[in-house]
Amino acid sequence: MAKSKFEYVRNFELDDTCLRNCYIVVRLDGRNLHKFSDQHNFTKPNDDRALGLMSRSACSVMEELDDITIAYGQSDEFSFVFKRSTNWFKRRASKLMTHVTSQFSSSFVFYWKEYFGEQPLLYPPSFDGRVVLYPSNRNVRDYLSWRQADCHINNLYNTAFWTLVQKGGLTTTQAEERLNGTLATDKNEILFSEFNINYNNESSVYKKGTTLIWEKVNETTTKQIKRPNEEETEVTVTRTRKKVTSHSCDVIGDQFWDEHPDILESEQC
Amino acid sequence: MAKSKFEYVRNFELDDTCLRNCYIVVRLDGRNLHKFSDQHNFTKPNDDRALGLMSRSACSVMEELDDITIAYGQSDEFSFVFKRSTNWFKRRASKLMTHVTSQFSSSFVFYWKEYFGEQPLLYPPSFDGRVVLYPSNRNVRDYLSWRQADCHINNLYNTAFWTLVQKGGLTTTQAEERLNGTLATDKNEILFSEFNINYNNESSVYKKGTTLIWEKVNETTTKQIKRPNEEETEVTVTRTRKKVTSHSCDVIGDQFWDEHPDILESEQC
Amino acid sequence: MAKSKFEYVRNFELDDTCLRNCYIVVRLDGRNLHKFSDQHNFTKPNDDRALGLMSRSACSVMEELDDITIAYGQSDEFSFVFKRSTNWFKRRASKLMTHVTSQFSSSFVFYWKEYFGEQPLLYPPSFDGRVVLYPSNRNVRDYLSWRQADCHINNLYNTAFWTLVQKGGLTTTQAEERLNGTLATDKNEILFSEFNINYNNESSVYKKGTTLIWEKVNETTTKQIKRPNEEETEVTVTRTRKKVTSHSCDVIGDQFWDEHPDILESEQC
Amino acid sequence: MAKSKFEYVRNFELDDTCLRNCYIVVRLDGRNLHKFSDQHNFTKPNDDRALGLMSRSACSVMEELDDITIAYGQSDEFSFVFKRSTNWFKRRASKLMTHVTSQFSSSFVFYWKEYFGEQPLLYPPSFDGRVVLYPSNRNVRDYLSWRQADCHINNLYNTAFWTLVQKGGLTTTQAEERLNGTLATDKNEILFSEFNINYNNESSVYKKGTTLIWEKVNETTTKQIKRPNEEETEVTVTRTRKKVTSHSCDVIGDQFWDEHPDILESEQC
Repeated sequence: MAKSKFEYVRNFELDDTCLRNCYIVVRLDGRNLHKFSDQHNFTKPNDDRALGLMSRSACSVMEELDDITIAYGQSDEFSFVFKRSTNWFKRRASKLMTHVTSQFSSSFVFYWKEYFGEQPLLYPPSFDGRVVLYPSNRNVRDYLSWRQADCHINNLYNTAFWTLVQKGGLTTTQAEERLNGTLATDKNEILFSEFNINYNNESSVYKKGTTLIWEKVNETTTKQIKRPNEEETEVTVTRTRKKVTSHSCDVIGDQFWDEHPDILESEQC
Repeated sequence: MAKSKFEYVRNFELDDTCLRNCYIVVRLDGRNLHKFSDQHNFTKPNDDRALGLMSRSACSVMEELDDITIAYGQSDEFSFVFKRSTNWFKRRASKLMTHVTSQFSSSFVFYWKEYFGEQPLLYPPSFDGRVVLYPSNRNVRDYLSWRQADCHINNLYNTAFWTLVQKGGLTTTQAEERLNGTLATDKNEILFSEFNINYNNESSVYKKGTTLIWEKVNETTTKQIKRPNEEETEVTVTRTRKKVTSHSCDVIGDQFWDEHPDILESEQC
Repeated sequence: MAKSKFEYVRNFELDDTCLRNCYIVVRLDGRNLHKFSDQHNFTKPNDDRALGLMSRSACSVMEELDDITIAYGQSDEFSFVFKRSTNWFKRRASKLMTHVTSQFSSSFVFYWKEYFGEQPLLYPPSFDGRVVLYPSNRNVRDYLSWRQADCHINNLYNTAFWTLVQKGGLTTTQAEERLNGTLATDKNEILFSEFNINYNNESSVYKKGTTLIWEKVNETTTKQIKRPNEEETEVTVTRTRKKVTSHSCDVIGDQFWDEHPDILESEQC
Repeated sequence: MAKSKFEYVRNFELDDTCLRNCYIVVRLDGRNLHKFSDQHNFTKPNDDRALGLMSRSACSVMEELDDITIAYGQSDEFSFVFKRSTNWFKRRASKLMTHVTSQFSSSFVFYWKEYFGEQPLLYPPSFDGRVVLYPSNRNVRDYLSWRQADCHINNLYNTAFWTLVQKGGLTTTQAEERLNGTLATDKNEILFSEFNINYNNESSVYKKGTTLIWEKVNETTTKQIKRPNEEETEVTVTRTRKKVTSHSCDVIGDQFWDEHPDILESEQC
């Protein structure tokens, strides 16, 4: 069987290497997640189990794949930022986006039970991914700010919407009409004056989304040691290791970035 | 919160539309599948459970995503061919490859139990994907021939290798040395003369891989119907619907293509 | 001086290889050619000198660069079709389009005098180029048909427009208004009934544009030969060589393609 | 004639927009310039007429096309740097590279006579172009440093080589062998000890190449004005305008960039 006769087809594969010295962002979005959340009875406007599972899956991506320094998620989307100088998979866009998407998708099913317990997953869900390049620190920070601003806008809307429905007795159509054309201050006012809800007191994971970074964590273990001819003694060992940690904080202002100077590389000037 | 201030970052996303009038092939490959198969005690050289699960996942991809007319899998890889004229996701390469990869990966975990029963999946596996375009029917047939020729070559080698180890008592290093430089005929001869194995009698799914296509299937259902003032009667209803069917046949020669003229579109000349 | 220190910048160059087994079309368009034609007093609606110079420049491109089998020009544009299997410059899009554009531009200035005589070229003109891929013979024929249909539509309009201005005494604004909303038949009628011009009798180079192809041409040379002790005799030598030939014919119908079966490669089926 | 029937072919054109917030560099290289320089009797190792014509053509590119802030040339190549934020031709790579190449090529022929006088241009020359993106100021400076380091290395070699041939009486093969494996210091030493040439005193345009930038230039014009009932007076008017200026200076160190802070945009941090 002549292998070589067909092998010319390899040459149809085109190169899709990402431009160097740029941050590579892979963003995932759930496919038909609206229908999926209805079929799995997600709590509205936010389902803690689903948000937890999304973060768990994103954490799995960071642990398995190299060179992701920060990930940010909200609702049914998650973004992963590879470091500027990464050479993972030779910066091939297709490899980067499919590996992230694959690891996230298989993790979502794998860890389902940890978050939804006995409630069964009805069918395998699907996510789509894309790659976007950002040449400067400012650009990549603005990207994350864009997603967090989007999170805020959507969550305020959804909180007002579902409060009007769940506590105010409106139909979804009525709630939609009620909120049509309202500003952020209007929605805050509706929540406060009609339902005694202070939006500022809402959970920050809803308002700010989830930010995953690598941090050094001290892990302390204590052991009882018994040497011959000695009394038993207690030995405490502290080891430092890097671990993915989760935060629900503001990433738009400077404070977060000042506190974590290692996430973005210093600019070459 | 000024949404618009950050929204300029959307313009960094680049277009990756696939050239029209070309077949779009998405190929998936398992990541570190060698290690994965060891950790999950896959039977060598072929594990029927794993092959079944791969096909089940590929089937899920075909059922969920539009416009895939044929898929071909062997070992830890699967290729999906979108029809030439597909406009699914506006032919955007990133959407096509990530949706296929995601659906396959989540299905692999979702259907694990159906194939591996109580043996647990130890961690979420990962697959990578790529997109390749083929302008002509000849090219796409040669692509599938290339993968099937590869299947044959690898399976003959693996069958000889593991027979030498499992039945011949050789170490893996000895088996490797024994096969070094041998031709196909040599491997057939080793199997036949030393182990009384006729390679031609091996399962065709091992030798030819798995081909999935859409076929019209007649489904017959029988119901007992009882109308007032009538005796109960049995009614048989036959419906025709399209279904993904699995084949382990030769796709290099013309016969398969003559029998299934609808898989490839007729050439515009 | 450390060369290597800076050489990393080479890695920022991205690959732009054209998909194989596709026709590569490079189309050039004049930049600000309207202003250019005014400043150089081009005859309206068609300037034979300019059309001749365009064709001469295109001919220079075909003679200098490999693997162009057909070129088609009209107005201030010219398209060049590379053969499907070309490997010229490894099919790199940037090389292909810049070489065509460069050769055309330098030829346009170089041969100016042959067409415009003592009328000086006032400044160096500029053309832009692009690459488009076509996977099938049908596609590339439809591309050429598209440009020739465009030629016809524009030329009929321009002929009617400039006749109304030059012979009918209308201002350009009046001519524009007069033609606004008219169909092809209306324009033909205006030309015929008001100016006694039968559009069908217009020069085919205006109506059909210019098609350049390679053809075998017999070249006959005659020499007087005088051998010792013989009478002087006339010897005729006929040599066949490939030459770029120019045609102003229909390329939309089948006849042209039937007569020149070598321009497009036979389809792989 | 059905225009629409063929117009679908437009959709085969693919987008090639350059990533934003990156410097866009277009580099041109002469095609077969070695042969060209022989046929036109260029002086070795450097021909002032040819270098002048290259710079004149590059100057024409900068004057005609928008947003080029610096150009650098040496030998038969020229690089043009578009500003980071340019939106010229919507950042489409094909438009950018073909327009630069076209303007350069037509200018090269157009201005030939100004530099070569009565010596005729034998045929239209060709240049190829490419686009490379650089995300940071450091990268684009390193790109220019790379080209200037290349200029130095080549010019020292060529100066030594042609001195050995022209003054030392060596054949070109002998000169090549003599220089094989020599370091920069060796070449300097050969020039100095054998031919009494101090390489440092060579023309800086040979050693450093040509850098073109935009600078504000004061232009003073003097007019005699005679008003009624007044004596004739001389009036001097000074106007400031931007003009392309040529420099043969070091662009590797900081001094040039400190003196011209407007060429590169300040980094967004």
